[in-house]
Amino acid sequence: MLKSAIKELPKRYRTNFVNSLSGFKSGNLIGTISPDGQENLAIFTSVVHLGANPALMGFIMRPVSVPRHTYENIIATNSFTINHVHLDFYKKAHQTAARYDRAISEFAAAGLTPFYSENVKAPFVQESKVKIGLSFVESLEIKANGTQMIIGAIEEVLVAPQLIMPDGYLDLEKAGTVAVSCLDGYHQTQKLARLSYAKPDREPEEIGHEIL
Amino acid sequence: MLKSAIKELPKRYRTNFVNSLSGFKSGNLIGTISPDGQENLAIFTSVVHLGANPALMGFIMRPVSVPRHTYENIIATNSFTINHVHLDFYKKAHQTAARYDRAISEFAAAGLTPFYSENVKAPFVQESKVKIGLSFVESLEIKANGTQMIIGAIEEVLVAPQLIMPDGYLDLEKAGTVAVSCLDGYHQTQKLARLSYAKPDREPEEIGHEIL
Repeated sequence: MLKSAIKELPKRYRTNFVNSLSGFKSGNLIGTISPDGQENLAIFTSVVHLGANPALMGFIMRPVSVPRHTYENIIATNSFTINHVHLDFYKKAHQTAARYDRAISEFAAAGLTPFYSENVKAPFVQESKVKIGLSFVESLEIKANGTQMIIGAIEEVLVAPQLIMPDGYLDLEKAGTVAVSCLDGYHQTQKLARLSYAKPDREPEEIGHEIL
Repeated sequence: MLKSAIKELPKRYRTNFVNSLSGFKSGNLIGTISPDGQENLAIFTSVVHLGANPALMGFIMRPVSVPRHTYENIIATNSFTINHVHLDFYKKAHQTAARYDRAISEFAAAGLTPFYSENVKAPFVQESKVKIGLSFVESLEIKANGTQMIIGAIEEVLVAPQLIMPDGYLDLEKAGTVAVSCLDGYHQTQKLARLSYAKPDREPEEIGHEIL
């Protein structure tokens, strides 16, 4: 299908189709708080790893010309949290995408629990087994469509030790973290393998946690 | 774990740990060609959706101070392809991460087949059931670590019609697309549900393709 045909697709069809093309996505809840204490929580499927040292993560936000509580809170407080969505509460997480009034906390509306640490201003999601607190670093505008990439530095990670393998790999399946497709598809996963570091002179081998 | 502790982790442990934090990732092969016809193929786990109209996708590249054949080819030819990694060739896809000399085509080294369309200069991966051809739009630098976000406009999508549901949703499971964790974990998926568009006054419902 060529660009010209994609442009002519019915809007909802095009949205679903193009949103599907990147493959599986992460499912994360981003928690923020306004300067006057109003909590906000919203699901994002665009969180990406940007670097390990310094530890940086980013996510994509649609144009900020329409009010975005998450964006406003991040700019105002310099703080946000990223929290994994798991099998046991993905429907609650999905519900945070509804357009609630600013005065409504999506935590309460969706039935999730805010959790505060001493080191991060924004609220974490207590139900999440992988909680990441970040400080705002910069925002990059994608000129072609006015979308923003929000970049944060990791300030604190709260994760149960039993989810961390001896080499630092997080067992996302043990955590029950979901994968997302398109705008509304939620999936559980089953590990095929971890593969050894790729080198030109040999084929990749499956590696087990027991040998790490 | 606080920022200061993350910084002190052994390098490999830190790399695995921080790379795990974003959750599940897409697995895609990016195909390019140099002006003199040298093909290049590399696996990326950072491809993200940026917008449906215009249809835009992006991915993250590490600093370009070290030679990156993919980046150089995109800048030189204005063209690249994104191709889903599937269950039946994820080990071959992983192998493209090895540091081959410029004169070696990762297609040949990994045992994958280049495929050319009339509309896109860069090579697709014939084995991939979801092939996307893009033109280079812009490159954004993340100042905090010199990483680049490469942005492309979708010029052509090659996908089997039977993978597209009536509302435009792509059935990634039917395609056999994998999800990736950390740097080296490959996963198959099992759909939990697609959920209805979130609205403040009702709980999300599971939607079936049959009713769309």
